[in-house]
Amino acid sequence: MNFAEISCAEFISRLGSKAPVPGGGGASALVGAVGTALGNMVGALTVGKKKYAEVEGDMIRLREAAEKLQGEFLTLVQRDAEVFEPLSRAYGLPKETEAQREEKDRVMEAALKEACSVPLEIMSKCGEAIRLHEEFAAKGSRLAVSDAGVGAAFCKAALLGASLNVYINTGAMKDRALAGEYNRKADALLAEYGPCSDRIFESVKNYLKKE
Amino acid sequence: MNFAEISCAEFISRLGSKAPVPGGGGASALVGAVGTALGNMVGALTVGKKKYAEVEGDMIRLREAAEKLQGEFLTLVQRDAEVFEPLSRAYGLPKETEAQREEKDRVMEAALKEACSVPLEIMSKCGEAIRLHEEFAAKGSRLAVSDAGVGAAFCKAALLGASLNVYINTGAMKDRALAGEYNRKADALLAEYGPCSDRIFESVKNYLKKE
Repeated sequence: MNFAEISCAEFISRLGSKAPVPGGGGASALVGAVGTALGNMVGALTVGKKKYAEVEGDMIRLREAAEKLQGEFLTLVQRDAEVFEPLSRAYGLPKETEAQREEKDRVMEAALKEACSVPLEIMSKCGEAIRLHEEFAAKGSRLAVSDAGVGAAFCKAALLGASLNVYINTGAMKDRALAGEYNRKADALLAEYGPCSDRIFESVKNYLKKE
Repeated sequence: MNFAEISCAEFISRLGSKAPVPGGGGASALVGAVGTALGNMVGALTVGKKKYAEVEGDMIRLREAAEKLQGEFLTLVQRDAEVFEPLSRAYGLPKETEAQREEKDRVMEAALKEACSVPLEIMSKCGEAIRLHEEFAAKGSRLAVSDAGVGAAFCKAALLGASLNVYINTGAMKDRALAGEYNRKADALLAEYGPCSDRIFESVKNYLKKE
């Protein structure tokens, strides 16, 4: 099943069920796509407007980047489901004998590594999306700036959501050196892009809110 | 068009275009639905488990509430589109003569009030959803707790997103007393539920993250 192609209502209904996928990682990729699309909309409402002729080139470049990211996020919705299934099977392997325990450990470790790679990639794409929002918010049409603020908030939420899916998997890994490396990558992405998104949101809020 | 029934990919593609709807308000309702579904999933993975027999009644109650909220958020995706269309038409009304200006002001003011009511309702539903996540995170299966943390982060992002859609509309209202009243409602919802969501997220993160 391609989760990007089912209806929004069906995605949400499956997400709220005990079906193993989609899960929190795939949902984070979806929210990243929604956030990125909001930035893209700001671009769409800016290009071709005389008042914004000076930033036309920027907007075209930003829209291309946003379009690409939207597609990548949707692919990551699917990829997250693909790496979760082997992990879910691995959790169910028998551990009666020593040989079974060793085999389970080996399979689990490989599945956990895969299951970390996707949320880490989602986080990295969220960082790219937040950088785009910074420019959409600063240069895009004032009439659409609220959407850049909303988009930045969503990309941050997707970043946070994906981080928990890194931590849950690194927490179960035997290779603590590699687990620590993944955790530090996630920590660094949170530390860089979380506050960046907050600044975009606050600047948009201050611009819009009138007493 | 029913925006809850189109595919996720199509929703995102329309959102990223210059089509007037869906916009930031509808996208916030969608993210609220995604967040709520993640809490609901925690409930689904907890009910029927011997280890969690003590909270079975709570989980059933929480899941019913989450199920209801998911449906309400999806209805709000659509309602936001419905109230935006008259506002978008009102912005385009002529203002050549004094009579036209008066008519435009009157139509705009009514459309702006409507366009504030939906994001305020989205914010209020986000608050309810965050309260559910508080319980899902505290009482639900430890194996699924990451999803409660992700869900709380998404519901906060939806709360923030909807708030900008209140502020942009109150900013354009002539009736400053009413605009102030709406702003204060939005401020109060942000002040109450934003930090509440942050606490849920941090507690889940601290539980999951191992050095």
